[in-house]
This record gives sequence, C-alpha cells and structure tokens, in this order.
Amino acid sequence: MGDATTGFALRGTFMHATRRGEIEIMEDAVVSVDAQGSIGAVHHPAEAGHATAVNDARERGALHEFHEGQYVLPGLVDLHIHAPQWPQLGKALHLSLHDWLLQYTFPLEAKFAERAFAERVYTSLVDTLLANGTTTAVYFATVHVESTMRLADICLAKGQRALVGKVAMDDAEQCPDGYRDASAAAGIEGTRDLIAYVRAMPGNRGALVRPVITPRFIPSCTDHLLEGLGVLAEETACHVQTHCSESDWEHAFVLDRLGRTDTRGIADFGLLRPNTILAHSNFITDEDMELIGQTRAGIAHCPLSNLYFSNAVFPLRSALDKGISIGLGTDISGGASPSILDNCRHAITASRALEDGVDPALDAARRGRPASRIDFRTALWLATAGGADALGLPVGRFEPGCDFDAMLVDTRRAGSNLMVWEDADCPEDILQKIIYNAGRDDIRRVWVRGRVVNEK
Amino acid sequence: MGDATTGFALRGTFMHATRRGEIEIMEDAVVSVDAQGSIGAVHHPAEAGHATAVNDARERGALHEFHEGQYVLPGLVDLHIHAPQWPQLGKALHLSLHDWLLQYTFPLEAKFAERAFAERVYTSLVDTLLANGTTTAVYFATVHVESTMRLADICLAKGQRALVGKVAMDDAEQCPDGYRDASAAAGIEGTRDLIAYVRAMPGNRGALVRPVITPRFIPSCTDHLLEGLGVLAEETACHVQTHCSESDWEHAFVLDRLGRTDTRGIADFGLLRPNTILAHSNFITDEDMELIGQTRAGIAHCPLSNLYFSNAVFPLRSALDKGISIGLGTDISGGASPSILDNCRHAITASRALEDGVDPALDAARRGRPASRIDFRTALWLATAGGADALGLPVGRFEPGCDFDAMLVDTRRAGSNLMVWEDADCPEDILQKIIYNAGRDDIRRVWVRGRVVNEK
Repeated sequence: MGDATTGFALRGTFMHATRRGEIEIMEDAVVSVDAQGSIGAVHHPAEAGHATAVNDARERGALHEFHEGQYVLPGLVDLHIHAPQWPQLGKALHLSLHDWLLQYTFPLEAKFAERAFAERVYTSLVDTLLANGTTTAVYFATVHVESTMRLADICLAKGQRALVGKVAMDDAEQCPDGYRDASAAAGIEGTRDLIAYVRAMPGNRGALVRPVITPRFIPSCTDHLLEGLGVLAEETACHVQTHCSESDWEHAFVLDRLGRTDTRGIADFGLLRPNTILAHSNFITDEDMELIGQTRAGIAHCPLSNLYFSNAVFPLRSALDKGISIGLGTDISGGASPSILDNCRHAITASRALEDGVDPALDAARRGRPASRIDFRTALWLATAGGADALGLPVGRFEPGCDFDAMLVDTRRAGSNLMVWEDADCPEDILQKIIYNAGRDDIRRVWVRGRVVNEK
Repeated sequence: MGDATTGFALRGTFMHATRRGEIEIMEDAVVSVDAQGSIGAVHHPAEAGHATAVNDARERGALHEFHEGQYVLPGLVDLHIHAPQWPQLGKALHLSLHDWLLQYTFPLEAKFAERAFAERVYTSLVDTLLANGTTTAVYFATVHVESTMRLADICLAKGQRALVGKVAMDDAEQCPDGYRDASAAAGIEGTRDLIAYVRAMPGNRGALVRPVITPRFIPSCTDHLLEGLGVLAEETACHVQTHCSESDWEHAFVLDRLGRTDTRGIADFGLLRPNTILAHSNFITDEDMELIGQTRAGIAHCPLSNLYFSNAVFPLRSALDKGISIGLGTDISGGASPSILDNCRHAITASRALEDGVDPALDAARRGRPASRIDFRTALWLATAGGADALGLPVGRFEPGCDFDAMLVDTRRAGSNLMVWEDADCPEDILQKIIYNAGRDDIRRVWVRGRVVNEK
C-alpha cells in the first residue's frame, strides 16, 4: 500500500471543505494517487470510472479500502508555530507577555545555539504535530542558522510539508543581549544561507520543505534588517512570515515608530507579498484588510494564543468577507495545544464570544459585534483549504491536481471521547463530532504527498 | 493493593489546591487510606510518622509506590451534566438555543422513556466520565423516574460518586407535549420516588450516590411544581440543582414572569438552600451573589457551554470575591467536552476574554472588565475542592478526614501531547502542564473512596 512507484487508490468516505462554509462528504468514493503523491482522480460511486478505478487498483494490489467508522479528511495546516518554544508548551501562561518573553521565551530560544538541544526538541515537535494530523507546518525557528537547518532536515526526513524560517531580529533596544542577530547584515545573510540550504537539500523533491523569510516582527527589527529582507524576498521569491498587529502593545508600538500601521509598514518594507503569512492581525484596520486582500497575502488566525496575549478576538468574519485567505495557527507555545483540531474549536468559540460579547453587565445590544460567528464547516475550511490557499500550496482538498495530504480518523476506537451513535448520527453530524472531539489517537494514519508519515 | 478490608497507603507526589489560588505539591508524601476509603493521615517526608507509615503498609503488602513522572491529583468534580444529552455531544452546536432544544435536545431526552436506551447511554457516559477523571458527577437525567433510577444504579455499580436528579418540568406552554411531567403533582411524586429509591439502594454505603431535586429551570416549571419541590427539599434535606440566569433570554423571562431575579425566585420557592447548585448564573446581580453566599449555595460554572448558549462570560472573580462556593461543569452537551480538565482551560481563557474584552474596534480601556482573570491554580481549585465545597462533600483535597477520590497522571506516556522536560520543568510547571495538556489516556488510574474505578 502507498507504493511510491506506481501509485495507489483509496476507497472510503472522504470529507473536506472545498470552499469557506461548505463541506462535501463523499461516501464510497475512490481517490487515485499517482506515484508522485498527487491526486489523479476522484470517483463518486455513481460514476462509470468508479468500478474501473477500484478494479485496476485491486488488480495491482494497490487498493486500500476503509471500513465503516473510518473517515479520510485533508491533513491539517498549521500556519504559525514557534518551534523552539515546544518545551514550554502549557507553561508560564499565567504571566504577562513581558515576563513570559524575558523570563521564559527568550532564554529558551537562546538555548538553540546548541545543535543537540535543537535536534532533540525539533524531533519531538515534528513527531507530535504529525501525530496530531498536521501535514503542513509553518515554523518560526530561532536566530540560529544551523539549528534552523536541522529543523528543515527533520521535517524532510519525517516527511512533513513545512516552511522553515530562521528568525531575524536585530534591534538591540528590543532584543536581549544574548539572543539576537549580531547586525542587520548578519540577519539577512543568515536568512539567505537558510534559503539556499533548504532549496538544495538532497531529496527535497517538489520543494516539500521550503524556506520562509521570518522577521520576528517590526518591533524587534531595525529598518535596515526589514529593508534587506524585503529585497531578499523579491530576489528569491521566497515565502515571508511575520507577526502583525497582534496586541494593543504591538499595534501601538509600530504606529508610534513608523507613523503607519503594522500592515502598511510590512508592505512598505517589501514584505507583504502573495502568500506572506501575517500572524494574528487582530488589530488590523479596514484599509489593512483591503491591502492584504489585494496583495493576496494570508493571515494565520491563532484563536487560543490570542486569548492569552492579544487583548482581543481577531475579527475573522470581517476579514473573510473581504476575501482574505485565512488559516489557523497553534502559535505554540503562546497557545498551549499542538492540535489544529483544538484550534478549530477555539476559532468557533472565540467567534461566538466576539459576536455575543463577554460582559454580562452590558446590555446585549452593546455587548458584542453581530454576525461574527463561524461554525464547524468554516473551521474545517480554515484548518485545511483556507490555510493551503494562504500559502499557495496545492493541498487541503481531495481534488485532481492536489497533493494527497490527509488523515484517517477512526470513530470506533475504544477508549475515545469521540462518540458516534450510528443509529442517530448522519455523516454531517459525524464530521461535526470529529471536529469537536477527535483527539490525537483517533487519527490513525497520516499521509503527506501520498507517503504514510504517521501510523498508530 | 486497595484492600478494602484493611486500608492501604500510597507513596508518591501529590498535588492539590486546598484553597482558591493556592496549590500544594507534596513530594514523597505518604497518604494512608482506611478501610472505608477515607484518608487517615498524610505524612510529609520530614515527619517522624513517614517512615513508620511506609514500613507498616509495606509489611502488610498494602503500600503502593509511584514512580517518577507519576502524580496523584484529586479526582475531578463535574457539577453540571445533562446525562441524556450524551449521544449528541459535539453535535448541533451551530444551531440557536431554540432549534437546539426543539429539534435535537427535547426529542433525544424523550427517548429515555425507554429503559434499554437509557441503560446503554448512561453506561457509556459514566464509563467515559470516570476515564476522564470525574470522580463526582452531578447529573440532570430526564423526566422519567425509572430511567433515572437506572442512572443511579449504574453510578453505584461503577463506583462513581454522584448526585442524580429526575428532571422536573411541567409547564405546558414551555415544554413539548411529548416530554414533560403530566402535572405538578406528578413531578413532585416522581422526585419523591427517586429520592426514596436512591437512598435505599443496596450497597449505597455512606450515600456515595445521592438524589438531587432538579427543577429544570423556572421557565419550564409552574409555580405549583416549584413550591412543591421546595417543600420536598425541606422535608427530605435533599440537594437541589437548577439553572439560573443562564442567558439574556432566561434572565429576562424570569424577571418578566415573577418580577424578581431568577436567584430570588429560586429562593422564594424554597429551593435556594445550602449546597444547592445553580448552573451558569451568568447574569446574577450583586444582590443575587450576596444571597447565594449567605445561603451557602454553590454555582456550577460551565465556561465552554457558556460560549455557545449564555451570551456572556460568568463573572467568576466577582463571585469568588464574594465568597461563593464555585465549581466547574461540563454541561454536556451544551459543552462538547466530557473533560473537566478541558473546562479548567476554558475557565482560564474565558476569564481572560472577560478581562481584556473581545472587540478590537473598542479602545482597550473600554473593551473588558479589569481584574477578571484566573490562573491554573484557581482552575484546579474550582475543578476539585471548589466543586466539593459547593456540594458540601468531603473530597477534593488530600487531608485527613477526606475521602480518597483521586486520579493518577503519568507524564511519561509515549504518544501523549503532555510533554514534561524533566531538566527544565519544576513541579509547579508540571502541574500547569497537566492542567493544560493532560488527556484522558494520561489519567492512568482513578479512585473513588479508595476503590479503583478506572484503570488503563
């Protein structure tokens, strides 16, 4: 099964969200995957090609049929992960951002100067994310070029689709002495080295692992560094990621320093490009949204982390209605869960908190922001096709031409909190239950580009 | 081990929250449990009795020692569960409360007229809650007396500490035709029968399973029913539970019908008593809080469910500062998780959303309600001792005289999202990580009154 030389076919129930707010559930469908891991065809049972596809694959010994209670969903896309923060997942979240950064986060990130430590942490992280169904991961690493190269190696070896960025941060006033780029030039050259390394990695066929230019955020970077990275982005056509208007503090800091919004500043430095990923973006203005939409950049919505460090809920529906590509991010370790399914749930609840408001002492009419809620359908789209679209990658849907990045959920596992009552739940109910209650162990198999990268 | 005739001792690291906001971590402590499942003594390693307790238990073959990476926490207290809604966990949450009730919830609850269906569902539910560490569960069942008796039977057989209530609801204008008490008298008599049955169950030593008088909420009950249940509460000295000021709709409905707040109405019907559990209570006034505090009633805070059906966040810190006993509730299936640990996380994030506010379009100064946040310490207290205090039950702490209701968490399980880095995490960090990331399978053993009720 999963023979990389001839391709294979999968027969079962496939569930995906091809457009925002719309789900499609294909029962007894056949998905044919070619030798490169790309979806060649999707056959519904009523189609003539269905039987042929089943028989051809069966004759070749390359048909995998799933049993009742098993469902294939697209692999999950995590648009925002701080890889070095993995050891402090679920720790120090009772502190202010200032204390969290200075007492915990920066000292921890500084330890990635040591290659062995980096390898230990990154191995654990990539294994965990794959086990949770994350087939595409967008990483902030640290300022250290060599350790960041190791993260790219590990992703490639384990088969995770990834964008890996060396963090660039050089402003001596905002960054601690022991943890920053020595200069703007050093930050730019280190980024250039990382790009060259990742693109030349042996075995990195079809750019499964890609580099991403990663200024931490405007407050920690000098203008020189930001300008240089903008030039590098144009020169290399590399993805870009950064934080944008995450909190009151960040939004105000950039307004004060540049006299422009964060989004506008990022654009003026040449860093707002198609498929640039702006993390958070909670305080972006309507004009910022227009600019992001026109540029075809994307937003990493990190609903759990935002409850700790952002002072507000991202106005998701407003941004979606402007046509912006949006996906989800765990924001490890600002968010304490490594699961994008968990973040689907938080995206739903945060949107409802924004809609209804939170303070019971206020009149209902003044408490919230109407028409803000999303449901499980949009949450699934954000977690899969939405994130893929933001990155411009051909994943997130079961359609010909897409790579086969997927996960198999088994709703009949004993000992699970995911409970399907087969006499009462229709397929759409089952999908909703998967989104609300599937845990790591309910995800029995994970594929990236047709390759099995996790199996339990 | 766990010999019920002579008692036993446990040696290891115990973590609990004896008071709101304060945790105690006892390393290498010995907890002696007597033949009735009650804690006889707790010995710290520096104490003279420590070695004696270890040796005595060891000689009797009744010493259980835990290894590194294992931690004993109090069992979790879930103050609010709609047992019959278990099959629809994670389903229909995209609907309005009205549609959710009429299309899904009431028809589902009506099916519990059938005893076999009730037994199937309740068995699954109690097993799942025990596996998630819930040692004390407060249940709304349905209007059906016999099915509710079966829930009590199942709790007792499986060893779960439980309060089990037959739902009383008789108002023909508010309740569907097929699903309500035939009359106020029928609701009262059914409740009386349930109380008598539960108190007389063979084997129900020390009232492990108790009855609870359960008017659904004022809107679904006539004055006659509420008055009769108030008399019954006084006559039987039985626990009481109901919903209180959950949403804008409920709060306004009761104000309109009675010309008083929900809390005041419940009190005037004789239903606000010591250890009455008021679910939600999001819109209670300062005067309501005073009344609840003076009465020594308690509140079931259901942070996840509130994000779906309550229109606001419960003002937890305000209520705690008034000295009210508060615990957590999953509110299955208004909340989609059966885990009280999950609800610890939601209690923390909801409190932060209330503090900071949610709408980024508002100035920070007007966005939230200052000083609303809680941290993991208070979350653990709510989930254990806080809930126990609300019920007036001797659990939730490792102290002499308390029953030994506990769970064993193993932080070294392969394949878990709970990651402890032993060279970097202090015991308090580990506790925080347990609260943020322990899942069902990380809870390896669960005890109620010294009896092992779940083991993986």
